[in-house]
Amino acid sequence: MSILVVGSVGFDSITTPSGRVENVLGGAATYFALAASYFSEVRVVAVVGEDFTAQHESVFHKRGVDIRGIEHAAGKTFRWGGQYLDSLNEAKTNFTELNVFEKFAPRIPADYKDSNFLFLANIDPTLQSAVRLELSQVRLTGGDTMNFWIERTKQELEETLKLIDVLLINDSETKMLAIESSLPRAARKVLAKGPQALVIKHGEYGATIFFRDGAFGVGRHPFRAPALPIEEVKDPTGAGDSFAGGFMGYIASQPELNREVVKRALFYGGVMGSFAVEQFGTERLQGLSREEIDGRFEIFRELTHLA
Amino acid sequence: MSILVVGSVGFDSITTPSGRVENVLGGAATYFALAASYFSEVRVVAVVGEDFTAQHESVFHKRGVDIRGIEHAAGKTFRWGGQYLDSLNEAKTNFTELNVFEKFAPRIPADYKDSNFLFLANIDPTLQSAVRLELSQVRLTGGDTMNFWIERTKQELEETLKLIDVLLINDSETKMLAIESSLPRAARKVLAKGPQALVIKHGEYGATIFFRDGAFGVGRHPFRAPALPIEEVKDPTGAGDSFAGGFMGYIASQPELNREVVKRALFYGGVMGSFAVEQFGTERLQGLSREEIDGRFEIFRELTHLA
Repeated sequence: MSILVVGSVGFDSITTPSGRVENVLGGAATYFALAASYFSEVRVVAVVGEDFTAQHESVFHKRGVDIRGIEHAAGKTFRWGGQYLDSLNEAKTNFTELNVFEKFAPRIPADYKDSNFLFLANIDPTLQSAVRLELSQVRLTGGDTMNFWIERTKQELEETLKLIDVLLINDSETKMLAIESSLPRAARKVLAKGPQALVIKHGEYGATIFFRDGAFGVGRHPFRAPALPIEEVKDPTGAGDSFAGGFMGYIASQPELNREVVKRALFYGGVMGSFAVEQFGTERLQGLSREEIDGRFEIFRELTHLA
Repeated sequence: MSILVVGSVGFDSITTPSGRVENVLGGAATYFALAASYFSEVRVVAVVGEDFTAQHESVFHKRGVDIRGIEHAAGKTFRWGGQYLDSLNEAKTNFTELNVFEKFAPRIPADYKDSNFLFLANIDPTLQSAVRLELSQVRLTGGDTMNFWIERTKQELEETLKLIDVLLINDSETKMLAIESSLPRAARKVLAKGPQALVIKHGEYGATIFFRDGAFGVGRHPFRAPALPIEEVKDPTGAGDSFAGGFMGYIASQPELNREVVKRALFYGGVMGSFAVEQFGTERLQGLSREEIDGRFEIFRELTHLA
């Protein structure tokens, strides 16, 4: 089954305690697509500028990702600069140059209209809704958002949440969206806004998925997946999008969609996030093998499962 | 097998978003003893003042806890006042009255000398070491400490760490003790100081145990237990000591001491911590049944285990 991801492709300049890189390929759609490519066919809708070269394209092509939906516009590609010197859990933004991303109006190629899975990366909720409504064959929509949209476009976001099946956000976004400090209570409030399930990403502590009653079959409790305790997190950039890529990619690879599949997907999300942070940028996600991925999945199981 | 716990017994005045209580029975040794009492015989060494009444004693007696080691001194019992209004993860101390606890010099009754398990709650590391050295039949020593001792009595604490088999502390204490911001690296540094295993308590995210090579049998990875996502945490006070009580209590109840037992103990730690926070003070820990505890253990398993 093929997944369509709509979001940013850009160039990042990142400083962490482990070092510094400049203008490396990044963006939510990039991390998502590379992570998901180990499980399913992936299509990307994004916009880049004239500085996006054949070399950048080849990163996607080598992973078999379909980037015919990446629009080439006049001007420069989106650029972001950030640092994680005080805390690996939170980036401090040095600069954001929206460039061609400022006028991003996603155009879905005709060939992409049969996509069965959709991931709406962190963009303007109005665009998220428009994309979703254009696709009639989608079985499951995943989505992300951030504090910026929660604060500034709350009404539009509420509409988008009615169209998203699984929302993947972090602890503080969940609390802000629900205006509630207890995480389980905030989760219930977010689910009441539309999604069938809410994945709350806890960074180094893993992630928890909360289900609406009856969503993806029967089951009483939430489910929690760990993150791998990694000695040297070189670059946390893209961990959340890589998580989403592993999560959605695994779901799209499965013949059935039930709660057990979703739980395993949560583990695969953690696995892909754990790989992403081991090197700067998307480097680690470019050359993995399915054996390495499944090997780490087993480590995640050993990390959490009693005999 | 019997466990001896040495630590504080006191009266707490606590304010949380759920309400306020004054002068309720608390203290690390109290939470530990009540939690562990559902698994093993427990003995307490502590000091109280003249305001410690038969009513307070009965809380221990009802759970079968042996408190002949609680010394009654002239003066008032240790009192602590705190609030969790900004965050349930961190207490803000309103006042600390050490009272009789200021001169606490643990005296181990002759009847307690055959204790096989020992928990050194958060007290002066010099006292912790003295207690450990007095007991010749101990098979496993658990211990706690805090920022106060890490900052002020580092040298003494280093000596204590050589006598402790399992250290149970939280994330920030681990990083402070190791002078290292990566948690897995910090864990390795702490283990190099002496303990066979380090339990890092992550609050609402559960706990991770790191093992020295070969400790408690063979095994490569750390192990992580969840915490229950509880809608209304009424009072976080004592969660960590209740965790330690469940952890040590379960270990002491088992005929063998191997890695699988330690992993299950980590789950039982989380279970007892999750009960503790559901009511103010020790209320919830006073009237549990083993069936309730094992029922919650199964919920913890469902929360984390794939089919």
